Amino acid sequence: MSQKGKIGIVGSGLIGRSWAMLFAGSGFNVSLYDIVGDNVDKALLDIKAQLNNLEANGLLRGQTKANEQFSLIRKADTLDDCLQNAIHVQECVFEDIELKKKVFEELDKIASDEVVLCSSTSCFLPSLFAEPLKHRNQVIVGHPVNPPYFVPLVEIIPTKWTDENITKRTRALFTQIGQKPVVLKKEVPGFIVNRIQYAILSECYRLIDDNVITVEDVDTVMSDGLGMRYAFMGPWETCHLNALGMKEYFEKYAQGIHDVCMDSGPVPKMGGKTADLIVEAMTQKTSIEKLPERRKWRDERLIALSQLKKKLDG
Amino acid sequence: MSQKGKIGIVGSGLIGRSWAMLFAGSGFNVSLYDIVGDNVDKALLDIKAQLNNLEANGLLRGQTKANEQFSLIRKADTLDDCLQNAIHVQECVFEDIELKKKVFEELDKIASDEVVLCSSTSCFLPSLFAEPLKHRNQVIVGHPVNPPYFVPLVEIIPTKWTDENITKRTRALFTQIGQKPVVLKKEVPGFIVNRIQYAILSECYRLIDDNVITVEDVDTVMSDGLGMRYAFMGPWETCHLNALGMKEYFEKYAQGIHDVCMDSGPVPKMGGKTADLIVEAMTQKTSIEKLPERRKWRDERLIALSQLKKKLDG
Repeated sequence: MSQKGKIGIVGSGLIGRSWAMLFAGSGFNVSLYDIVGDNVDKALLDIKAQLNNLEANGLLRGQTKANEQFSLIRKADTLDDCLQNAIHVQECVFEDIELKKKVFEELDKIASDEVVLCSSTSCFLPSLFAEPLKHRNQVIVGHPVNPPYFVPLVEIIPTKWTDENITKRTRALFTQIGQKPVVLKKEVPGFIVNRIQYAILSECYRLIDDNVITVEDVDTVMSDGLGMRYAFMGPWETCHLNALGMKEYFEKYAQGIHDVCMDSGPVPKMGGKTADLIVEAMTQKTSIEKLPERRKWRDERLIALSQLKKKLDG
Repeated sequence: MSQKGKIGIVGSGLIGRSWAMLFAGSGFNVSLYDIVGDNVDKALLDIKAQLNNLEANGLLRGQTKANEQFSLIRKADTLDDCLQNAIHVQECVFEDIELKKKVFEELDKIASDEVVLCSSTSCFLPSLFAEPLKHRNQVIVGHPVNPPYFVPLVEIIPTKWTDENITKRTRALFTQIGQKPVVLKKEVPGFIVNRIQYAILSECYRLIDDNVITVEDVDTVMSDGLGMRYAFMGPWETCHLNALGMKEYFEKYAQGIHDVCMDSGPVPKMGGKTADLIVEAMTQKTSIEKLPERRKWRDERLIALSQLKKKLDG
């Protein structure tokens, strides 16, 4: 076993594979489990191909070769096997609350008192599956952004029972593998990523619903305007630099921001004619059959941006 | 005079200079006017230095040399001189509604029945200064994003009196100089850029106010997560690609989006303790004296991203 320790991964889909590559890239042993054992065999083949491909394109993370990284990833035949001596378990099963509850009950039965029990869920408050567990003080969420190999953010959400030390260890581990963790101080629906995303979607939906702008144009406002800044700076730093500092920004614009937001109307229910219009515009831009090709287009850009940011930040 | 036509620019500050460079870069004659004539002399010196600097760094836009581009920009001694034979006037004076009203009254007196009277304002509805004018059907807003030389978005806002043809010509002109215009179908406070920006700021403010996350962490959620996608894709395309298309996205998430947004609480009034916390975090990150240096950091990144996007999109 490597000196860094062992990570258990439960679920061998896209997210499970990404985590496996990230952990192995930083020298951790990875034990990959799936309720359907054959899925792990497929996942291992795919991981091997991905790592070789990343290496061939100069995109491999970590200090070791692709085959060394791959050799750290093993199939676990049982959940016990996956957890044994693990310092951290990353759950990556399908997003279904009953399934999550079941998996965490199973984990709870065999978990040591030390291991971090971390879910990758993007949508379920961890207390929903942590509450009845005897190890609930070890449960936490580490929600990555797709594709995690190139978009480093991970949002960490402890429950009210989570030990402070578990939160610290989770943040330190994600930092160690080169991701950018942020920690929520309490559980809120949607966490942070989706709360911000949904605030944007709601405003954009209203603007289309009110016939102010087309679907294509509202996307352009982001991709050729606001979004270019946000690739490097958060909303507060954007303001700090656009004004003579944040203090002046609030003095000058707080009232205007309030007035504009008050003009925005209630939270929209997305459906009906306006939703159809958005579906139509998007499908016209990229048909369902062409989605994989366009995702490749997106990932190429995220890869290039990730390389650019690394180069600029030294 | 070049065959492309003449552009009048009123106001020789940062935005006026950027417009002058963009128009001259595409072969338009530019006539630059400022109520303080000396300001134009200073602006011309700065524009010359900027163009030479861009050329030296391989960043000059357009097909001609820096000195050829510079030779297309002339000082106008009077507003008459600035407007004479112009096809488009770009107003770039200080953001003060009384000043805008006064400038547009002056423009109205001497404008031909053909010229586009375009304001760069980021915050005033154009009907506020267009209403009393006899040429109000020629008034429009073309609001750029800073720095316009590297962030191509321009939002165009016609008034209810604006001729359709004026709107079309404005969109075509901005496209011709390599910017990315979007057109609002009607005036709304904040236009689109600031409505989206303010929706984000409001949500981020509430999250800090509710003690869910720190100021630094909320900025990281954008710069190392959401914002990396938004550098290339708008909010709708992001959803279209993240799901099996936009239709499935709405079916799966519309209710969840609504529930999360309903959880977000009322529009915050930004001030007091939470605003102080944000000011403190930002000032600790970059002190007021260091703002110019950090703006240089930002612009370097926007330049590099703009080059990357051009390279990737061919």
